Amino acid sequence: MTMTSLQDLFTHHLKDMYYAEKKLVKALPKMAKKAGDQRLRGAFEEHQRQTEEHVTRLEQVFQQIGEKASGKTCEAIDGIVKEGEELMSEAKGEALDAGLIAAAQAAEHYEIARYGTLAAWAKMLDMPEAQKILHKTLEEERQTDEKLTRLAMEQVNRKAA
Amino acid sequence: MTMTSLQDLFTHHLKDMYYAEKKLVKALPKMAKKAGDQRLRGAFEEHQRQTEEHVTRLEQVFQQIGEKASGKTCEAIDGIVKEGEELMSEAKGEALDAGLIAAAQAAEHYEIARYGTLAAWAKMLDMPEAQKILHKTLEEERQTDEKLTRLAMEQVNRKAA
Repeated sequence: MTMTSLQDLFTHHLKDMYYAEKKLVKALPKMAKKAGDQRLRGAFEEHQRQTEEHVTRLEQVFQQIGEKASGKTCEAIDGIVKEGEELMSEAKGEALDAGLIAAAQAAEHYEIARYGTLAAWAKMLDMPEAQKILHKTLEEERQTDEKLTRLAMEQVNRKAA
Repeated sequence: MTMTSLQDLFTHHLKDMYYAEKKLVKALPKMAKKAGDQRLRGAFEEHQRQTEEHVTRLEQVFQQIGEKASGKTCEAIDGIVKEGEELMSEAKGEALDAGLIAAAQAAEHYEIARYGTLAAWAKMLDMPEAQKILHKTLEEERQTDEKLTRLAMEQVNRKAA
């Protein structure tokens, strides 16, 4: 598929994120199950519910551009999730929780980059409603990232050290 | 390899970043060559020089923990770079530059996540020198990300819209 306009790029990256969010909806329960720290498990469970909502919001954006919601294989999130799975099989005990946070933050940052880009493009394409929806998700990803940093700093890293 | 301590996690993720930075040293010249906007090309060239410096800094951290510098396949950066390559083959004209910025920001954010984690772990492991080195690189990745956002906002996205 050749992309020659910002609209083409926008649709392409929207499909990429639709695939990524759906992949994370499946990955997060596995991470929650592995987490030893109760607050960390709770954070993953809460973020899974948020991620399901992010899928719904992407469907709203697809509707706004008159496209059927569909995903496109996103090698970046596949790689990030694969690294997380390896971590879950290799890390044990207290080190596991610290590693789970690192894996989740890698996913969060991928989403922060992508939603930041998509929101900026929506603005440039004069789609204020889409921009607002994408920005809302962006803020939630940033908050999740900060929450994970706090959890790591306050307890998980200390236990693992 | 089983990881049971924060020290194990630190070494594991240091190897992951060593592989990632070396991969980016090779990817950035291709991105610079493809960039149509002169300032964007300059930004990629400058960041390539920085990335080479980041490799050297990681070697200093390896030295501090008494390990030989070595990489470990990082599926996340492989996926991010692969997405960038697909973008370069599929996007044309003004859309190409906007897409290149998005691809570069995905890589920057992966590095921001990883260096943030490594610097926090270095602090917890009482390695102030390593923490300082990792934090310096973290700040440079953040600055590069912000520079790319400015470039996108000020000119590249506008041209593509």
